[in-house]
Amino acid sequence: MRIVLVIGAGRSASSLIRYLLDKSEKENLHLIIGDLSLALAEKKTNGHPNATPIALDIFDKEQRKLAIQKANIVISMLPAHLHIEVAKDCLVYHKHLVTASYISDAMQDLDKEAKANNLIFMNEIGLDPGIDHMSAMKVIDEIREKGGKMLLFESFCGGLVAPESDNNLWNYKFTWAPRNVVLAGQGGAAKFIQEGTYKYIPYCNLFRRTEFLEVEGYGKFEAYSNRDSLKYRSIYGLEDILTLYRGTIRRVGFSKAWNMFVQLGMTDDSYIMENSENMSYRHFVNSFLPYHPTDSVEIKMRLILKIDQDDIMWDKLVELDLFNPKKIIGLKDATPAQILEKILSDSWTLQAHDKDMIVMYHKFGYELNGKKTQIDSKMVCIGDDQTYTAMAKTVGLPVAIATLLILNGKITTPGVQLPTNKEVYLPILKELEEYGVVFHEQIMPYFGYNPDKLLNQ
Amino acid sequence: MRIVLVIGAGRSASSLIRYLLDKSEKENLHLIIGDLSLALAEKKTNGHPNATPIALDIFDKEQRKLAIQKANIVISMLPAHLHIEVAKDCLVYHKHLVTASYISDAMQDLDKEAKANNLIFMNEIGLDPGIDHMSAMKVIDEIREKGGKMLLFESFCGGLVAPESDNNLWNYKFTWAPRNVVLAGQGGAAKFIQEGTYKYIPYCNLFRRTEFLEVEGYGKFEAYSNRDSLKYRSIYGLEDILTLYRGTIRRVGFSKAWNMFVQLGMTDDSYIMENSENMSYRHFVNSFLPYHPTDSVEIKMRLILKIDQDDIMWDKLVELDLFNPKKIIGLKDATPAQILEKILSDSWTLQAHDKDMIVMYHKFGYELNGKKTQIDSKMVCIGDDQTYTAMAKTVGLPVAIATLLILNGKITTPGVQLPTNKEVYLPILKELEEYGVVFHEQIMPYFGYNPDKLLNQ
Repeated sequence: MRIVLVIGAGRSASSLIRYLLDKSEKENLHLIIGDLSLALAEKKTNGHPNATPIALDIFDKEQRKLAIQKANIVISMLPAHLHIEVAKDCLVYHKHLVTASYISDAMQDLDKEAKANNLIFMNEIGLDPGIDHMSAMKVIDEIREKGGKMLLFESFCGGLVAPESDNNLWNYKFTWAPRNVVLAGQGGAAKFIQEGTYKYIPYCNLFRRTEFLEVEGYGKFEAYSNRDSLKYRSIYGLEDILTLYRGTIRRVGFSKAWNMFVQLGMTDDSYIMENSENMSYRHFVNSFLPYHPTDSVEIKMRLILKIDQDDIMWDKLVELDLFNPKKIIGLKDATPAQILEKILSDSWTLQAHDKDMIVMYHKFGYELNGKKTQIDSKMVCIGDDQTYTAMAKTVGLPVAIATLLILNGKITTPGVQLPTNKEVYLPILKELEEYGVVFHEQIMPYFGYNPDKLLNQ
Repeated sequence: MRIVLVIGAGRSASSLIRYLLDKSEKENLHLIIGDLSLALAEKKTNGHPNATPIALDIFDKEQRKLAIQKANIVISMLPAHLHIEVAKDCLVYHKHLVTASYISDAMQDLDKEAKANNLIFMNEIGLDPGIDHMSAMKVIDEIREKGGKMLLFESFCGGLVAPESDNNLWNYKFTWAPRNVVLAGQGGAAKFIQEGTYKYIPYCNLFRRTEFLEVEGYGKFEAYSNRDSLKYRSIYGLEDILTLYRGTIRRVGFSKAWNMFVQLGMTDDSYIMENSENMSYRHFVNSFLPYHPTDSVEIKMRLILKIDQDDIMWDKLVELDLFNPKKIIGLKDATPAQILEKILSDSWTLQAHDKDMIVMYHKFGYELNGKKTQIDSKMVCIGDDQTYTAMAKTVGLPVAIATLLILNGKITTPGVQLPTNKEVYLPILKELEEYGVVFHEQIMPYFGYNPDKLLNQ
């Protein structure tokens, strides 16, 4: 029996655990599912004979060390900042480690020792980061092997509601941490390169500088810029690339409407609002509007946003029941962002029958034998239900597949790493296809970064 | 001979030193002017027999203590965070202290000891803070003494270019630290109360939510909200007030134009731009605009700002020579804010013959015997020249007058304080009038916070 310790049995662990349990007979696996909540761990194991749920407090050093010591490999699905103690124990007890999180500086510092001990510390092997790395590196490596020179790399990803469950004016529901959605884009300007020029977009303009994307069978999307596009230069070896851009995908119209909240100041997380607990939704809105002795909150809102009452933007606000004087916030000492999250959760929480959707879209521009070409690579994944969501599948399956590949000696390169090597991404991408995570690649004419010409085709 | 030690001989010390030297014969004063730069100290004393310039490094503990020990009273015109060591020495050697800076927590902590030693540590006695406190408290105290109840207090202040030197489209030049002008409004939402409701304005809306002000003989102004309006509640004893608002004064049209920089992200001070040193002004602007293969920077700029070529907003940008491809930034590792400051300094630096102007405007709304009334109090001060600027006069004269009042035993209440007491503000405001710092008070009908009705009058 090979023991796999899974630490953290939250939402993103569902598909990962199912995958490993489905393979447990054939692959001779036994899963230990550890979570702070024993009930949650039990729910995820669901009485499977090859799984043992345990209560695991990773801050309890002895408990943690004991669990790691017993395992053949460790999967940490903890929040990113909690991996490091697990990783250090893995060094002590000579265990491989798999996480879906970005490599922190502290994790990177363990690289030498991991290599010395012939241990694989595989990170960034979920969806984003994860599937994005693998699907991008596959095409980039293919282009390079043919002798092509990369000119452009644009990469977009979004967690959305599936078309069959898409029934609000925003074409959006919370399919992942709502707080991150409300805070998206804050904390600094977005920075990227377009045709060799560094470009910067401030937060107050972020949701007005979107790009359009089309995915066959799923219609039109838009994307706003991520903050971190340039860090992919060195990771993917794209130091000389002319255009490098990463974005977050939404349905068309979301960003323009979201920008209303940004402009009013409702996404601010830096201060606490007076009397937030007893404030009504209407009062919350009025806090961001000028005082007027007679004008209604609605009139003031339309005036400041410069929108008419028959504008779809207005309907989007009304749909959220923003102007209700009877609904009370009920959050003590809350920031505008926390209050907005609460209001949006009324409308944007996935219902029991709702499904989510992941959309990923890469554009690769390159020059080969004097000819410029573009490859577009697209993937759409729809969730099965509220447990095996598209998010749980795309985050968890690569983690699970990588874990088995490491156990079976198919991935052998030691060290702290992310899945940019063929040894890793080829078998994982191949197996992901069996689970419906399929990238469709298309050859396109190359226009560089030139959306107008693209539309004129 | 009574020795006055002035620490810091910078721009704001000119009028203060002139005042004390003019009185030095009659009042039996000798000034020690200490500055890190002996040349600057010498320039300010200008060979006056009752003044001694000294080189003074306040980080040199022995030097500092020696200078303070010799004085009868100390004036610190240092940057705010440097007062505290001077204040501690003043406690040790039993000297009064005068500063024009906000009372820091560290300064406040010395209150008990200052009182125990019968020492006056007078702070916030420049322009803003300073003249604003005094001129406001005078009217507020008068209203209260008549039995009136304060309903509204709005207070506005701005450092501008004098009408006779106002020759650019922005009606603005840098009359004080340009960096503070570029960063104005950043770091959090503006918070205030209007008619009993807390209101919040985010940075991206700050320059679009202005109020108009009219000053007889000087025309129309506008004001954008300060961040800190509410701290005046407790200082002025206005805990129950319905409307409390503080703003910064500019000429009408400035804020709308400034907002272009905010929206583009040019005022951001949180990151360093790539290759800032060798970048042209035009390249700087283009960094905040989308890439386009053929459209010019000018066309892209007008498109993103949604302005026509015959819009005065456009002329304001052109006046700054923003689109010049030959002018080079020349600042290494600079933030957008630092680069913008440099570009604006080309156009907005006061010329040798230019004069500055300070405008202050208070509105006091109150109820007395069932009747609601408003008093508007306005002050305009024009600089004499580039040394005795309106800023130097309004910051330095109250400091100087207070110093002499303390020396002459006219101000006697000990402790760490600001000038909200009659004993302090009455004689100072009276003497300031001799120097042209005069508040004109008008009785107005009371409309609460209701600018529309005001305009319908």
